[in-house]
Amino acid sequence: MAPTPDWVKQLQPSGPQGHELLAAERACSQIPVEKLSELIHTKEVLDRKQRVLNILKSEKVFDKSQNYFAGRIDRFEAALARAKKLTNLRIKHGWTLDEYRTANELISEPGPYGLHDSMFLVTIDGQGTEEQKEKFLTKAEKYEIIGCYAQTELGHGSNVRGLETTATWDSASKSFIMHSPHLTASKWWIGSLGKTANFAAVMAQLIIDGKSYGPHPFIVQIRDLKTHEALEGVHVGDIGPKFGYNTMDNGFLLFNKVKIPHHSMLARFSRVDPQTNKYIRQGSPSLVYGTLTWVRSTIVMQAGSVLARGVTIATRYAAIRRQFQDRDAPEWEKGENAVLNYTMVQIRLLPLLAATFALHFTGKAMMNLYQENQKKMNAANANTESKRGPGPEELGAGSDSLADLHATSCGLKALSSTIAAEGLEVCRRACGGHGYSSFSGIGSWYADYLPTTTWEGDNYMLTQQVARYLLKSARTVISNPSAAATNDTTAILSNYLKRSEIGCAFDVLSNDTDIVQAFAWRTAFLTFEASKHRDEQKKPWNDLLVDFYRLSRAHSQYMVVKNFHEALESREVSSQIDTPTLGILRKLYRLFALHTLEQEGSEFYASGAVTVKQISLARTNAVMKLLKEIRPHAVRLVDSWAFDDWVLDSSLGREDGKVYEDMFYRASELNPLNRITVDPYPTSSVLFKKVEGEVGRSKL
Amino acid sequence: MAPTPDWVKQLQPSGPQGHELLAAERACSQIPVEKLSELIHTKEVLDRKQRVLNILKSEKVFDKSQNYFAGRIDRFEAALARAKKLTNLRIKHGWTLDEYRTANELISEPGPYGLHDSMFLVTIDGQGTEEQKEKFLTKAEKYEIIGCYAQTELGHGSNVRGLETTATWDSASKSFIMHSPHLTASKWWIGSLGKTANFAAVMAQLIIDGKSYGPHPFIVQIRDLKTHEALEGVHVGDIGPKFGYNTMDNGFLLFNKVKIPHHSMLARFSRVDPQTNKYIRQGSPSLVYGTLTWVRSTIVMQAGSVLARGVTIATRYAAIRRQFQDRDAPEWEKGENAVLNYTMVQIRLLPLLAATFALHFTGKAMMNLYQENQKKMNAANANTESKRGPGPEELGAGSDSLADLHATSCGLKALSSTIAAEGLEVCRRACGGHGYSSFSGIGSWYADYLPTTTWEGDNYMLTQQVARYLLKSARTVISNPSAAATNDTTAILSNYLKRSEIGCAFDVLSNDTDIVQAFAWRTAFLTFEASKHRDEQKKPWNDLLVDFYRLSRAHSQYMVVKNFHEALESREVSSQIDTPTLGILRKLYRLFALHTLEQEGSEFYASGAVTVKQISLARTNAVMKLLKEIRPHAVRLVDSWAFDDWVLDSSLGREDGKVYEDMFYRASELNPLNRITVDPYPTSSVLFKKVEGEVGRSKL
Repeated sequence: MAPTPDWVKQLQPSGPQGHELLAAERACSQIPVEKLSELIHTKEVLDRKQRVLNILKSEKVFDKSQNYFAGRIDRFEAALARAKKLTNLRIKHGWTLDEYRTANELISEPGPYGLHDSMFLVTIDGQGTEEQKEKFLTKAEKYEIIGCYAQTELGHGSNVRGLETTATWDSASKSFIMHSPHLTASKWWIGSLGKTANFAAVMAQLIIDGKSYGPHPFIVQIRDLKTHEALEGVHVGDIGPKFGYNTMDNGFLLFNKVKIPHHSMLARFSRVDPQTNKYIRQGSPSLVYGTLTWVRSTIVMQAGSVLARGVTIATRYAAIRRQFQDRDAPEWEKGENAVLNYTMVQIRLLPLLAATFALHFTGKAMMNLYQENQKKMNAANANTESKRGPGPEELGAGSDSLADLHATSCGLKALSSTIAAEGLEVCRRACGGHGYSSFSGIGSWYADYLPTTTWEGDNYMLTQQVARYLLKSARTVISNPSAAATNDTTAILSNYLKRSEIGCAFDVLSNDTDIVQAFAWRTAFLTFEASKHRDEQKKPWNDLLVDFYRLSRAHSQYMVVKNFHEALESREVSSQIDTPTLGILRKLYRLFALHTLEQEGSEFYASGAVTVKQISLARTNAVMKLLKEIRPHAVRLVDSWAFDDWVLDSSLGREDGKVYEDMFYRASELNPLNRITVDPYPTSSVLFKKVEGEVGRSKL
Repeated sequence: MAPTPDWVKQLQPSGPQGHELLAAERACSQIPVEKLSELIHTKEVLDRKQRVLNILKSEKVFDKSQNYFAGRIDRFEAALARAKKLTNLRIKHGWTLDEYRTANELISEPGPYGLHDSMFLVTIDGQGTEEQKEKFLTKAEKYEIIGCYAQTELGHGSNVRGLETTATWDSASKSFIMHSPHLTASKWWIGSLGKTANFAAVMAQLIIDGKSYGPHPFIVQIRDLKTHEALEGVHVGDIGPKFGYNTMDNGFLLFNKVKIPHHSMLARFSRVDPQTNKYIRQGSPSLVYGTLTWVRSTIVMQAGSVLARGVTIATRYAAIRRQFQDRDAPEWEKGENAVLNYTMVQIRLLPLLAATFALHFTGKAMMNLYQENQKKMNAANANTESKRGPGPEELGAGSDSLADLHATSCGLKALSSTIAAEGLEVCRRACGGHGYSSFSGIGSWYADYLPTTTWEGDNYMLTQQVARYLLKSARTVISNPSAAATNDTTAILSNYLKRSEIGCAFDVLSNDTDIVQAFAWRTAFLTFEASKHRDEQKKPWNDLLVDFYRLSRAHSQYMVVKNFHEALESREVSSQIDTPTLGILRKLYRLFALHTLEQEGSEFYASGAVTVKQISLARTNAVMKLLKEIRPHAVRLVDSWAFDDWVLDSSLGREDGKVYEDMFYRASELNPLNRITVDPYPTSSVLFKKVEGEVGRSKL
């Protein structure tokens, strides 16, 4: 393509310019953006981000300008280069783990060291003996060996019990034989395995003397440390392109009777005695299951911020983008209307804006709960064996508060990642046609986030665990209605039972606490309904899965509403933010809660928590009024999520509103397809008649 | 990577093999797949598809094996090669337009001639004079010139009135000056423009003597016919990568006072008299607006089949994939359960399976309606000017049946493309982790389909047109309640008014006709509610957009339910299919209708169409029972959509069930990333230490 002519360079967008429009938006709200940012992130974290960001921006390897154009192999190559550079920067600047994590978060793309840095290290640290840590962890921390966590198989996902890979104890050679008996036994989806790792923490069925002892973790070398070629009997590679996550080398792995030494089996909780050839279990891995709870809590915590990226982009762009005149606008008010003024856009974006805060405060509460429990458990140091049956109803158990935490983390992980993933797509579409351009910055972010709805427990599967817990709690409450509640769940259940003959009258339209109670009431109602179906009518578990899904969603929505409300009533929040801003946050609370209530109207009505009239008023009056009241603050509210433009990498979401200039620049100046001139005629077999420079193509 | 070792080649999936599982599924249903296929597609179309498919399969250029791996530029290059080949095959085999379209449909990827073949030709044909057709169409049909349709601009989407590009009549030189006054005037998103077209049908504001006459179409040459470089004063290129649709070169286009001859303005309906310099309007472009209705009807028609691809893939895979044991299963029934047996999977997939048929029959009915109207209009040949105001409430109008058709096509386009797009994503997630792999075949199909929710009228914007029409109809009925109904819409409205003091009692759980009536009742209720808000309470249009959206959805759902029901009761269907199969189709009808009714419970309840008890029974009993009854026929039902494996290009959806073998083959044998060996250590600056052959990468 000819270089951009001068007349094009001089063109400007018509009408009021993007930066003027955003300035006007910011002028019509008094929200102290910095203060609110500090409430969300803390000053410490904001400073850390800025410090790390400055370093990243100064390194050429982190330049993002070709990310949206590059193909898979170039993306992976860049990601590998970035991963290496980060590791070196960490040493150079003496970064703490938090700083290193911040850097990864700012880069916002999965990288080839991802699973090494997380699950590989965690597994050895959590399940290895001191000698094993010495042997593997020391080297791994220095990246002398690079690992991954190989659990999922081609034919086996959520059901860990069903894994096919075997580790058979060979008493003669005092070693294990790793083997993949079928194609479906191939490890699959394993992050960092495809091209990068030379070690793997492999979950395999331990077999001693023909008997299976279930899945156990083994540290196995898979590639040569010098040549990086697969070792004998190992077949390993990348599983191919995905809907997103293409900077990561998710891999496959097959073993053909590979002999590994006795010390390969991580032996903190169980081991094979090489003398007696007996299986020995020692201590409880319940702290390990705690790790999963921690991971889920992290997902809840991040969901608000994940969604906030999309909401920031869509809100800023909706304040700039103009379309049609308001048909009721007075004659003198010329020009097109900002789409953010349309209620049909508001109803899509503003409840999601509210959700970002709701999820954020819920995540914080969840993390606190986790840490409290962790302390309790460490104190108790329960040495009882934890039994895990084959079906989902059997999972978990443990102490009362652990069970509550487990169930809550499952339900909230499912709800929050669903809200975030689906919300991002709503944001993308709310940007109209331009949302479909890669330059919107939402599409790839959404595509990369999507697996979160599947991993760490599939969002649909997890709801069974919540239902199981609630059914158990219902049984406890029913069997002893007068007993004191042991936690919040039993409290709302017994409250419901006590009042079930008096009924309830929640004033959801004017009382914030009543909203929480209405959500609790609906959850209790659905719990006892489920209990009736399962325990009284003995309906098959499978017939109830849809009800369980609804029940779990109801419970999790209650938790979000409750946590959001409690946060806003807390001294911690009110001491950090001025009263008018707190007032706006309360409106966001009401918007989130009433919009949810209205969406789930039938259940609320059926439970008797609210009347049909209230639901109808919530929809036509309360929600519409809240949209109008929150609208002027929308841009400042998203500003306080404090995403740097470098992080967003979005034409539509630019802080300075230069939407069209940036779209045009990327298309016209950065786009490698424009270095090509085609021969357009079907009579000619020439496709590209001119190619300027290298443009990322090849005959595959 | 080392070549696949023999021990890997010999591995098979564990347990019952995919083909055995699908065979078992097919054995448990008696649905005559071929017969049902013929009912859906007609024998003629099936034969045509097969004939064309055989030709495509035999041409190397259509080989799909690298589609999922290739980057944008390679994808575009392949698409260009395919487009050229298709054009040549069309001549070689003397294909009809239908056959050529079938070929494009089978290839299932947008191509660089896409907009030339459709909108460019249609625009000249529909809006050009005989001389203009002679001048442009003849060459265009021979691909001596290649065009596109340039309407949308960087700053202007749905609102055509707001376009900025100007065509100013220069009376001195008797020509038009094409100009882009601002950056936002840049044409944007224009299919086939980025790299391929040398001509464009440009929509520009016609200006004569300083006065604007609104947007008109101009045929403008933009690139040199020999060198293919942009002409002087033209800046044109590709707009960059998108969420999908990356085989298409959507482009941008700017003009710097480019002079074009008088004959460039398509002059069938309006022209500038070169002698008097006056604007002359002649005849009515209402037939042109008919084209938009036709395009929307096509979208409705295709939505069923678009969704059916995803449902086919997800259903077949769900019949093969096994996970967990049924916790109520007897001890002796070992092994994991097919996920299709889980009600939580059924509730996601089977209503979508039902939707494929519902949309299909609705599309057919819609097409018939369109054709009838077209005949009527041609007969009447109305020469009245159609007035188009600036706001959405003003759009459309025309005769009573045209207005009905217009509104119905808008509403159904929005509903059907939303159901299809969102349904595809549900299908993808229902495949669990593997749904995220490109090899699922759903992700790219979904991503390519997504723009359908935005183009030909944004799905949210369109609902205003439906609401406007229904409001108008309500006014007619209210002002003269005893007048005979002029169409179905006024019929359901007056029926509601007549019975509003008697009430209704629809037996939705056991009477199929009553279901249709309940949907009609709810639509009428919402229409009069909206009418009250707008006409009595004079609420601002903007405050009602959310209600209008709901109203439109209700009306369109009614249309789908009604059309599905009428099709199943028609002689045409019952004469073609056996009674048991018709019985299963009726179950699909009930599932679609009752599942929709339950999802929209509050509106049905509020309208009085059904009781809360009925909604609750629909959910817990009727829908669950239908899932169980339809389940055994699921695989045969998707089989009858008759997608060839070549078309699906999916590991998960293979007709022979060889899911895992195909996943593994693509990852291990076809994946170019596996031709690379990396240096994994952060201490080394080497990234790829070994690269075998070309692998689609370059320094961009």
